[in-house]
This record gives sequence, C-alpha cells and structure tokens, in this order.
Amino acid sequence: MSDPEVVVSAPGKVILFGEHAVVYGRKAIASSLDLRTHLEVHLLPDSTSVTLELPDIHLSKTWQMADLAAARPTDVDLKNPSPPSDQYLAALHRLAGTDADNTDARSLALLAFLYMYTSIHATARRCPAGRFHASSQLPPGAGLGSSAAYCTALAAGLLTMCDVITRQEGKNGADTAWCKDDLEVINSWAFQGERLIHGNPSGIDNSVSTFGGAISFKSGEISAFKSVAQLKILLVNTKVPRSTKVLVQGVRDRYNRLPAIMEPVLNSIEEISCTCEKVLQELGSPTVEIKENTQGKYYQVLEELVDICQCLLNAIGVGHPSLDKVSSITSKHGLHSKLTGAGGGGCALVLLRPDTAADVIDKVTTELRDCGFDVWETAIGARGVSQHS
Amino acid sequence: MSDPEVVVSAPGKVILFGEHAVVYGRKAIASSLDLRTHLEVHLLPDSTSVTLELPDIHLSKTWQMADLAAARPTDVDLKNPSPPSDQYLAALHRLAGTDADNTDARSLALLAFLYMYTSIHATARRCPAGRFHASSQLPPGAGLGSSAAYCTALAAGLLTMCDVITRQEGKNGADTAWCKDDLEVINSWAFQGERLIHGNPSGIDNSVSTFGGAISFKSGEISAFKSVAQLKILLVNTKVPRSTKVLVQGVRDRYNRLPAIMEPVLNSIEEISCTCEKVLQELGSPTVEIKENTQGKYYQVLEELVDICQCLLNAIGVGHPSLDKVSSITSKHGLHSKLTGAGGGGCALVLLRPDTAADVIDKVTTELRDCGFDVWETAIGARGVSQHS
Repeated sequence: MSDPEVVVSAPGKVILFGEHAVVYGRKAIASSLDLRTHLEVHLLPDSTSVTLELPDIHLSKTWQMADLAAARPTDVDLKNPSPPSDQYLAALHRLAGTDADNTDARSLALLAFLYMYTSIHATARRCPAGRFHASSQLPPGAGLGSSAAYCTALAAGLLTMCDVITRQEGKNGADTAWCKDDLEVINSWAFQGERLIHGNPSGIDNSVSTFGGAISFKSGEISAFKSVAQLKILLVNTKVPRSTKVLVQGVRDRYNRLPAIMEPVLNSIEEISCTCEKVLQELGSPTVEIKENTQGKYYQVLEELVDICQCLLNAIGVGHPSLDKVSSITSKHGLHSKLTGAGGGGCALVLLRPDTAADVIDKVTTELRDCGFDVWETAIGARGVSQHS
Repeated sequence: MSDPEVVVSAPGKVILFGEHAVVYGRKAIASSLDLRTHLEVHLLPDSTSVTLELPDIHLSKTWQMADLAAARPTDVDLKNPSPPSDQYLAALHRLAGTDADNTDARSLALLAFLYMYTSIHATARRCPAGRFHASSQLPPGAGLGSSAAYCTALAAGLLTMCDVITRQEGKNGADTAWCKDDLEVINSWAFQGERLIHGNPSGIDNSVSTFGGAISFKSGEISAFKSVAQLKILLVNTKVPRSTKVLVQGVRDRYNRLPAIMEPVLNSIEEISCTCEKVLQELGSPTVEIKENTQGKYYQVLEELVDICQCLLNAIGVGHPSLDKVSSITSKHGLHSKLTGAGGGGCALVLLRPDTAADVIDKVTTELRDCGFDVWETAIGARGVSQHS
C-alpha cells in the first residue's frame, strides 16, 4: 500500500473550568486535548471512486466521483463557507443513504464528509479520487469534541489536497501547523461540519481543535489565550452514561429553587475560570521566565482550583459516585481531579505535574482501570490541527 | 439508695449550618442536640460533705462543707454572676488540687463545679450537703457542647437546690422547664462555668443548652428562633481526631490565597443559613398549619441545604475521607448528611424524616458502625435544660 499523500490530525477538547456555569453567563475555559483524530488521504490516481473509512465505527463506504460531482453546489465560497441549502442537503442525504431522521453517529459522519468533499471539490482547483481513512483516540459521545476533531481533520485534509490552503512541508519529520489565515478557513469549514452534526454548536469545540491551546468563552464570545502551558493529565472516562440535557435541567431546577444559594456558587466558579486563565497564560508565556521552584507554585494554584471546582460542581448537583471514586483514588496518591463536561458520570481529568513520578501515575492508572474506567495519559493545551510529514 | 432530690438534664448542641463561615462574619445556625447530660443531686442530711461523681471521666471527689464554705466569696450577685477574682480562683484551684496549668477535662470539670457550688452556696438561702452525680450521653471534645451541657445542668441543679430559681413540679412524671427569667439566670451561670473551662467562649453552647431549640448567630449576636421543628437525626462521630485551630487556619490560608473564589462560597453558605432559619421556624411554628404532604417539601429543602453545604465545606477545605464515607453510605440509602463543627473528621449529622423507615435507619447505622464510627439516633431542636420529676 502506498504512503498516504496527506496525514493530518486534530485534537479533542476538554472543559477545564466553568461547565454548567457558562449556561448562566459565566466564563468557562476549554483547552485542546491531545487525544487526536488522524486522517490519512491515499491518492488513487487510476480510480474514479472515493472511499471513506471510519474503522472506529465500523464504517467503510465508496462513491463514484461522478455521483459526488453531480451533487456539488455551484456557489461555494471556499474561504467563507455557508450551510447547505435544503436541496443540497437532500442530495447529500441521498448520497449517504440516510434521511433527516437519521441522527446516529454513522449517518452524521457520512453527511459531514459528503458535505465537505462535494463543497470543497466544487470550486477547488484539484480534488482527488482517493481513500480517506479517519481514526480517533477520542471516545465518541463523551463530551471530548470527537465530532469537532473529525470535522477539523476532514477540513484540513480536504482543503490541503485541493490546495485551498498551503500544503505544509515539515522538516525532518516534524509536524507543522498552518498560518493563521489558513487556520481560520479550516475552522470555518469545521464549524459548518459541526452544524450538520449538532444543529446549533457553540463553535468552541472546532475552535479548540483548530487552534489548539486554550480559550475562554462567556456569553457566546470566544477568546483565545495568548499563550498556554501544555499540561500533562490523565483523562478518565467513567463510562457512566448520562444525558447532558437532564443534567443541565437538574442544575436549572436547583437554581430556580434556591437562586440566592446558587448565584454565589456560580460566581465562585467564574472566579476559578479567571484565575485559571491568568495562571495558564503566565505559565505558558514565552516572555515570563519561570524558574523550576516558581513553577511549583503555579501548579499548586491549579491543583487548588481543580479541587475547589470539583466541590462546587458537586454543590450544583452534577456529581456522581463514579466521580467521587476518581477523586478518592487520585487524592489518596496526592493528585487532583475534577469532572469535565456535563458531569453525572462521563469524564474526569487528573492534573499531573511535570515531575509526577511514573510509578504514581502507574498506580493511579491501575486503580482507576480496576474500577472499570478508561484512562489515557495525555496532555491539554496541545497544538491544534497539524499536518504530519 | 434514696431517690435523688433533684434530677435535671441539659442538651448538647450541633452547628447545623455556617461553621467556619461564621469566622468571616456570616450567619450560622446552631440547635440543641438531644444527647443530654444528666445531673442527679442526692441529699445527705446527716453528712458534712459534698461529693462530685463524674463516672464518664472516672472522677469522684469529696470535700468537707466547711472547706467549701471557707472558699466562698462574699459578693455574689446570684441573678447576675461575674467571673471569679484571682484570689477566689486560687482558692478554687486549691480545693480542686489543680493549678492554672491544668487544662485537662477533669481539672476543668472540678473547677467549674467548685466555682458554681461555692458561689451559689455563698448567698443562697439553702445549699445542701450531698452527692452530685453527672453523666452524659455526649462524647467529650467532639464539638457537641458537652462542657456547656455539664455547666448548664450544674447551674440548673444548684440554683434549684438553693431555691434561687423555682423548683419545678412536673405532673405525671412529665419533664418541665423553667420560666424565661429563671432560664436567663441558669444561662448566666452556665456561661461563667464555660468561661472557666474555655477562657473565651462564644456563649452559643450554653445558650442552646439552656433554651433548647435553635439559634442563629452572626458577628457575636445571638438570636433565638421564634419556633423550631424538632428533627430526627443520626449523629455520627467518625472519631477522627482533628484540631479546630489547624482547620480554621487552613481555611484562612485558602481564603488569603484565593479571596475572590472563597468570598462567594461563604456568601452561599450564609444564604443556606438564612434559608434554614426560615424553613425550621415555619416547620416548627404553632400557627402555621403544615399538612403532611407539605411537610415533605420542607424536608426536601432541608435535605438539599445539607447536601449543598457539605459540598461547600469541602470546597473551603475542611472535608475528610471519613466524612466522604459518611456521605457515600447515607446517600446510597437516600439520606442526606453533612459534617458539623470543625470538620476534618469529627462529627456528621444525618437528616431523617418523620417517616424514614426503621430498617433504613438500621442499615445505615450498621454500615456506619462497621466503619468504626459511633452513631446515635437522636434529635435536634429538642427542649433545653429540664427538670425531671
């Protein structure tokens, strides 16, 4: 099998602080998560077909280029995409073999690919017959931005193949990212993909996946951190299923019953987000020299923020015994953890220091896995979408 | 052995809400705890001695009436006592066989008794030779006001024996309390006893022990609830030793590091206290008719306050794995618990409803005891110091 023509990867995201509080207009912080979705594009010069392979969800589908070309719209602004018309969407559904009622992951993944492929192919100078192989380290449906990472990787791969954005030539096997303008284009397409999948996404997930690092968001406004420290974490998936909608409603009910008690808790969470923003930017700043002994103080603050925020999330009612279990195991080993995302099960993150001993990480990982949880040793604040040479 | 001449009992206290926050000027709520200290006074008409028996701390000590009489001060205002002079205090230490350096429970218990006996004896019309036998259901040193219950029972017993306050004649074996003026006198003496034991007490413990029910306190001001519901609880002593001083300092350190995050948490705790005050007064009000189905709603609010407050206490850093264990056992059975007092171990209270099934209470009690904890099924908001007929 030939080497792939293009390999790109895009990270997931975690909410560091401010989940739920953001619904009440408070600032939240999200960062990239270095569990990535990789897309390999293999050119098939003698072929007339396009294949999408998504092994994680056991999906492989092939279309004739001619059929895809027939569906392509005529009025695509490649630098500033817009949502598909109803007619175009209907054509995409026919190609996918789905209809508007199909909201399962496989149908939506097909739709997002077909939309991007046909749109970008439409006016691009060059678009290939080929095999698109996407696989992800991200568990789906866990609030870790797996669909955004998929859309971002697809956008980056397709836009590169079609020379809409500059092809990166990494030196000595290094991974490279695009210039800011190209990233904006990738982000716009990824957002359109997310809209097809989620209806009305916030744009946070695709922004974080595209630009990497961390952002703050408040009342619909997204601001990228000027700089951000890359932090080692353990990401824990308790695999306890939960409904974000039910959890959000539960917080709303408690808020409505006890507004005078809940308001200050949300204020405290916002202050945690503000403190995190300050600390992560300083810790990651290329102009602030941080000595090794000072670094510890930054981590100490972050650890305290993690501990307090986890308690406040319990106070607003989105805790779960599985998350208590994570806390109890990690704190026993001197580590600090909090839920990330909707709560009520789902995922937690465990902060690690640069010098956290490997055997501590091993022990904690083993104990967490013994509870039936999935555990990844990864990083937050990592680079956004990248091309691999 | 003859029947006792007088039997009185005084309750302990628990802080319901606002522990630690009260240090920062926020309102806290304390209520009586129906674990009581009983005092029996047996007259010994032919004797010239006075004996104090404190079986809980394995103490029994006898004095000659003449020696006690010699120590008595000349200027006692029986309705409005003041602290002992240095000279008087030195005489009390000689009688107790202690000195100012002895701050152990036995020395302080002797000192408080001798102070009250000699002072009240001094100008009272009648003070007996006799045997004073005090025993308590309260664990000492657990923040449950055991010393205040002891002082309150001593004050009530001595003041009654000496006819400074009205002797109660309960009908048909009923327990009776004193009129408000007499209770004020008891409370004043109990407070002086507490001062000997604690140096600079807040006066909360003796007030609650004397008047029963519940009080709010904020910035040194104590206000009694107009009415209060008597609530069934489990009181749990984790028996994890902790230093209140260290815990208070730990909260102060976190507050100094992160004031903008801690301030709103303290505000939320104060709102919990205010909501509790309203709910408990309504639930206990003789003029508000509460139907059985409405009662459930009051309990639901109290349970939610308990849950939220426990999380906020964790957020300010006074939790402990033993208290997490209490929470996890009780919530598994649908019950709600929080630490009470200093935290970091110590005691927790578990709210029960009037209709909480006996087998649930049994199961929870068994599981908590299996963890090595002491558990009492008792009540809060119970009557204050009472005479038993």
